[in-house]
Amino acid sequence: MSVKDVSIDPAVPGLLEKAENDGLETVWHRFASQQPQCGFGLLGICCRNCVQGPCRIDPFGEGPQKGICGANADLMVARNLLRSATGGAAAHIDHAYEAVEALYQAAVGKAPYEIKDEAKLKAVAGKLGISVDGKDKNTLAREVAEAAFADFANHGAAPMKWLTATAPAERVETWGKLGLLPKNPDREIRTAMHQTSMGVDSDPVNLILATVKMGLVDGYGGLHLATDIQDILFGTPSPVVSDANLGVLDADYVNIIIHGHVPLLSEKVVEWARKLENEAIAAGARGIKLAGICCTGNEVLMRQGVPLATNFLAQELAVTTGAVDAMVVDVQCIMPSLADITACYHTKLITTMPIAKVPGAEHVPFDIEKVDETARQIVRIAIEAFKNRDPEKVRIPGHRSKVVAGFSVEAVVGALAKLNADNPLKPLVDNIANGNILGACGVVGCNNAKVVQDSFHVALVKELLKNNVLVVATGCAAHALGKAGFLTPEATLQYAGDSLKAVLTAVGEAAGLKAPLPPVLHMGSCVDNSRIGDLLKALAAYLNVAVKDLPVAASAPEYQHEKAIAIGTWAVALGVFTHLGVVPPVLGSQVVAGALTGETAENLLGGKFYVETDPIAAAQGIIAHIKDKRAKLGI
Amino acid sequence: MSVKDVSIDPAVPGLLEKAENDGLETVWHRFASQQPQCGFGLLGICCRNCVQGPCRIDPFGEGPQKGICGANADLMVARNLLRSATGGAAAHIDHAYEAVEALYQAAVGKAPYEIKDEAKLKAVAGKLGISVDGKDKNTLAREVAEAAFADFANHGAAPMKWLTATAPAERVETWGKLGLLPKNPDREIRTAMHQTSMGVDSDPVNLILATVKMGLVDGYGGLHLATDIQDILFGTPSPVVSDANLGVLDADYVNIIIHGHVPLLSEKVVEWARKLENEAIAAGARGIKLAGICCTGNEVLMRQGVPLATNFLAQELAVTTGAVDAMVVDVQCIMPSLADITACYHTKLITTMPIAKVPGAEHVPFDIEKVDETARQIVRIAIEAFKNRDPEKVRIPGHRSKVVAGFSVEAVVGALAKLNADNPLKPLVDNIANGNILGACGVVGCNNAKVVQDSFHVALVKELLKNNVLVVATGCAAHALGKAGFLTPEATLQYAGDSLKAVLTAVGEAAGLKAPLPPVLHMGSCVDNSRIGDLLKALAAYLNVAVKDLPVAASAPEYQHEKAIAIGTWAVALGVFTHLGVVPPVLGSQVVAGALTGETAENLLGGKFYVETDPIAAAQGIIAHIKDKRAKLGI
Repeated sequence: MSVKDVSIDPAVPGLLEKAENDGLETVWHRFASQQPQCGFGLLGICCRNCVQGPCRIDPFGEGPQKGICGANADLMVARNLLRSATGGAAAHIDHAYEAVEALYQAAVGKAPYEIKDEAKLKAVAGKLGISVDGKDKNTLAREVAEAAFADFANHGAAPMKWLTATAPAERVETWGKLGLLPKNPDREIRTAMHQTSMGVDSDPVNLILATVKMGLVDGYGGLHLATDIQDILFGTPSPVVSDANLGVLDADYVNIIIHGHVPLLSEKVVEWARKLENEAIAAGARGIKLAGICCTGNEVLMRQGVPLATNFLAQELAVTTGAVDAMVVDVQCIMPSLADITACYHTKLITTMPIAKVPGAEHVPFDIEKVDETARQIVRIAIEAFKNRDPEKVRIPGHRSKVVAGFSVEAVVGALAKLNADNPLKPLVDNIANGNILGACGVVGCNNAKVVQDSFHVALVKELLKNNVLVVATGCAAHALGKAGFLTPEATLQYAGDSLKAVLTAVGEAAGLKAPLPPVLHMGSCVDNSRIGDLLKALAAYLNVAVKDLPVAASAPEYQHEKAIAIGTWAVALGVFTHLGVVPPVLGSQVVAGALTGETAENLLGGKFYVETDPIAAAQGIIAHIKDKRAKLGI
Repeated sequence: MSVKDVSIDPAVPGLLEKAENDGLETVWHRFASQQPQCGFGLLGICCRNCVQGPCRIDPFGEGPQKGICGANADLMVARNLLRSATGGAAAHIDHAYEAVEALYQAAVGKAPYEIKDEAKLKAVAGKLGISVDGKDKNTLAREVAEAAFADFANHGAAPMKWLTATAPAERVETWGKLGLLPKNPDREIRTAMHQTSMGVDSDPVNLILATVKMGLVDGYGGLHLATDIQDILFGTPSPVVSDANLGVLDADYVNIIIHGHVPLLSEKVVEWARKLENEAIAAGARGIKLAGICCTGNEVLMRQGVPLATNFLAQELAVTTGAVDAMVVDVQCIMPSLADITACYHTKLITTMPIAKVPGAEHVPFDIEKVDETARQIVRIAIEAFKNRDPEKVRIPGHRSKVVAGFSVEAVVGALAKLNADNPLKPLVDNIANGNILGACGVVGCNNAKVVQDSFHVALVKELLKNNVLVVATGCAAHALGKAGFLTPEATLQYAGDSLKAVLTAVGEAAGLKAPLPPVLHMGSCVDNSRIGDLLKALAAYLNVAVKDLPVAASAPEYQHEKAIAIGTWAVALGVFTHLGVVPPVLGSQVVAGALTGETAENLLGGKFYVETDPIAAAQGIIAHIKDKRAKLGI
């Protein structure tokens, strides 16, 4: 395996070599062995939705043009796309719902979580039209949780409250006119699964519209709901300094990696790791080090300062360091292969969620009422495992990069308020208007083995910064940029164009940081893309324009998960020009691909998808879009 | 195309020839052009759940054994199977939910449906623990609808009320011990989609258990709920005599075909077709003929005596008669190709549901508050279309078979009560105990182009009847058996073994029919498989055994839809030995295939799947199972 073909992460080559020496297979080996991948699947023109199939369309027009039922390429592609978006939305809704359950249980005294952010609680209650007067925080939290449950129990025709309470009014009106307002996240998911089953919808346009609706389900019933509730429970993030990359592991410590997406358990693992330091010391360690992978990593980074271990593609290599005593996983993006890797070391793989088990792992069930016991047990398992660690097998890369993370909208506005307390957005908007900041781009999403790990994120962002485009980042994209050093004040000096550099330096100094703001603002996990939506809403409101008119864009350069398809669709629905660096499985249908990337989407929604697999070309496309929007705004 | 290879339906050859002469492509042509089908898909070892893929497993063990994320064949097969069952359950839940909405709207005076069956309403209310005393039927109907909605708004840990109220107590206990009791149909669907997304569940056994749970979601949140509500709204079926096959169309009449699954609109189309006879006569017709396809056909057959046109595979050929003025479709099993076929004739293809559009069709939206206007408009479109009919293009096959349909459990018990009013099940059970009836088999499900149309249904049933196995049928299986003449008293004389014949003759005479009961009892649509479940529950309760101990079986000889996967899983969970005549896409995993067809399923649930693609061998397997259960009961 040629290492240069798989990753730009400097920690990878050594560990990949170690993995091979230890006889292990990694995601890149499996990717190589899967080549060539099925062309029908890549184009989206394979259908397995009934047992008459599978059916395939010949993309060259010589073989079959219809499946057995009569479905053509357009229908197959559209149906598959809606199912993907539904899978992604379901993942986020399930996550958000769990957070709501936790808030409710905490509010009624059945779960040992404290409601940490009363200001956010009141703000969310206010948006929902819930009176806060004279209510203690538990009462108010229960009412907010009940409002969330009410969306999931909505049997009427009214749209989801969480959407109408949080989305821009202009958008709610636009979506309403198109008949796209979801009513109840679960009903929409159920209906989409019905709609895509054999012999229901034959209209690709109707299916595309349903996909857009699913994007809204994801954006408000998933992302926004999860962020709101997690902020209430665990606190709204504010800037925090930490480190990223596998060099954060320490051979002298018990090392626990927290991996997944839902912070309900990991917040408690952090708490118990701190409480049980003495037990670790008694076991011969100098203490306990925690590090995060994927979005659970982002969550505990933002709120607890826990360093990032690595992102999606290198999760196996984290274990091959031989220094991880426990890898604790919740849900999503957990490679099934982890059990094979941990089996070669002393590492305990600990699954925790009822729907996410791994054969060979130890299952310590998450029980919300006994979450303290669960977290304590997990930390003790790690301490026990530490005793079995084989120092001969340990190889921790030296690579770690400083990161500044935790830029919630509240934190961004707070920093800007240092410049203009009455009108915090004014300095930002003024600098956009005068061209010091050309525009902004959210760089988000996953790793994907089809792309050299982190390379697209980094090359794209370099080019954007050079052209004075401010970047905000979430998810594994934020990890990638963190590992590559972009989440630091120093990166502003190194990568930002002159006018952007000047603005970030001025803001940083005004905020008392004695350094520039980083040029890439870490805004959180994948569900925290909701924060980007909120920032856009605030900017659009300040300028009295629609989100679709702003000189902004989004990019998911290395996405892989169905969640990204749902998030991207939400972004397009919000009016955002949304770049994808990996070709989605839609090229088998000109109708679907054309609608999503062309005038249909743009005319109806203001946003559209933009697929470009070269990072420099993608950056140029994004910059051209931003300039076009600037011109239309007359700035 | 060799006609003998495609169907045993005598109406098919002539129409297939006509279709070819008219330049049309049918499902069988498309099936031929799809050969050979993808082996990976057939085995279930293709995964498209993320954009790193598609990935495939080499079933010969030489190529890749894992997907890029690390998923092996067991995981891919299990994950795909759960998604299929989820698609099927979602279809049924959406159907049931629409019926609940209609009941609610009718109860509060917002939808023009009368609540026809107050006895069923009271019976359902009673099961749910809702007091009926002194309540008018609208009040009670509203409370029943609210109880249904409450399952969909259940945010707690209690199992679905509709399940605990209707399933056998022994089963509820068994499922509870296995942790399989669903709480809220929509939550379970959402969670299953999450569970099957990339990097969540890696445990095939956990996924199989989730699939079983999804079967219960389908059985009680879908099938049973839909049947209960539809009976309340439109009446519990009782035996009715009608006809089946395309000979029911009449060249002198306006012919309207009602096709799909949800009877909310079609009941009204029947009503308005009767009211607008005069307009048809004014247009030059002798009146209006209605005929049904798929389960909408079964619904209006049972309750309105509307004849069956044909089943799934011949839906296109119904149009090629040139005599259909309107094909009105709701949801499920509607071939996308219908628009191409209707375009060659004067036939109006009318779609009605927001999630089931067909490009080229006329969309007349179903609006529950204005359903009378919708139905009237549809009938008038058909009358208008009749004027454009080209008699040169008309060819109606002469084939039609008498059918007796509508054997709800209430009707069966009513007929048996003629023999023993105090103890209606006693005559049936006595005849099972003494061996006159060897056992019973539910023959259900679809057509599938992989099987010569109707051939498996007919060959299997012939063999079962000959061996004194009583048959009950639903869905397209019931259509097939109807077209082939098995839903008649005459069939008892022709096909039933001697002792079965004697019993059916005695019951028929006692019930005042002056003829035997048919040897195949038409119990309704696919959602009416719930009726079979209720009959098994009653028999088991009478005998004081579990359903799994009864000498019974189920068979889906020609199934194709994801709904069938969900229904079959429910049947297995109920403890039923369930035959499949088409190989499901699970053979790529010995773990999954073995668990579902072997001791794992049998030990945990009492039922299991039995896959056999030869009808005679399948009948023998079913009979052997029945004999085994008889032996264990000591009868």
